[in-house]
Amino acid sequence: MLIRRAIESDFESIWQIFKVVIEPGDTYVFDPNTEREEAFSYWFGAGINTYVAEELGQVLGMYKLIPNQPDLGSHVANASFMVNPHCHGKGIGRAMGLHCLEEAKKVGYLALQFNFVVSTNQGAVALWKKLGFSIVGTLPKAFNHKQLGYVDAYVMYRFLDER
Amino acid sequence: MLIRRAIESDFESIWQIFKVVIEPGDTYVFDPNTEREEAFSYWFGAGINTYVAEELGQVLGMYKLIPNQPDLGSHVANASFMVNPHCHGKGIGRAMGLHCLEEAKKVGYLALQFNFVVSTNQGAVALWKKLGFSIVGTLPKAFNHKQLGYVDAYVMYRFLDER
Repeated sequence: MLIRRAIESDFESIWQIFKVVIEPGDTYVFDPNTEREEAFSYWFGAGINTYVAEELGQVLGMYKLIPNQPDLGSHVANASFMVNPHCHGKGIGRAMGLHCLEEAKKVGYLALQFNFVVSTNQGAVALWKKLGFSIVGTLPKAFNHKQLGYVDAYVMYRFLDER
Repeated sequence: MLIRRAIESDFESIWQIFKVVIEPGDTYVFDPNTEREEAFSYWFGAGINTYVAEELGQVLGMYKLIPNQPDLGSHVANASFMVNPHCHGKGIGRAMGLHCLEEAKKVGYLALQFNFVVSTNQGAVALWKKLGFSIVGTLPKAFNHKQLGYVDAYVMYRFLDER
């Protein structure tokens, strides 16, 4: 598996994964009817670093890395990950997570923060814990889960100087 | 004191307050050298509802009210407040906070979340606690305080159906 910087011609693959990931309304805040243009801004807007994981020329997942806050908060990074649901269990999320931690450290960030991990998304919560993240906040009923209604979301955080 | 929706001609007053508030680098993430255009987008960008508190025709403070997340997270509001430092102690922050809670409820939000309350900003932390907010998260060393170096920031939250 190769993880590399995304280029604009990756967007068609990214868009296909994005649509399938948001469709159930169970892990991401995006409305299942989110427009293609909005998705494009999310992955290729100004100042956004996006990476794809590919195998045999096929994009299997992607992540983006940005400062979580401007200026006096810009030493903390934020990242978002999506994996093609048909490729779960192959360690793509984990590989991208490790890659992201390396990249964030290389760029000079001191910590990485996830602002909104849906509490019922057990796979994600377990993966981030395994990679050293702690739940530093719980946002009560902050996510309107399509099947379960309002559920909590977690803020997860880790410093980058410990591995 | 009158609290009302801001109009674009309020921006000069807002900009003056904004500059003085961010100058010490102790409460907001904005670099003290933030450009006027950036401040304008922050207060008058698309989809942003901004309010001013005024007395005798003078703007003494302002706040903005936006969804904290899109779509499946848009039932939780986010707000930011600034008060002219020369007018502290007059209850302007408190009055705007109460106004904001009413407005957010009126618009149909279920909760209000602050993403980044600097932990050493004791006045703000105390005010929000008095108005019913809880600290639901602590972001370790997430703020680069100009005098104190890296300090924690809090995520604060309250539902709008309890008063």
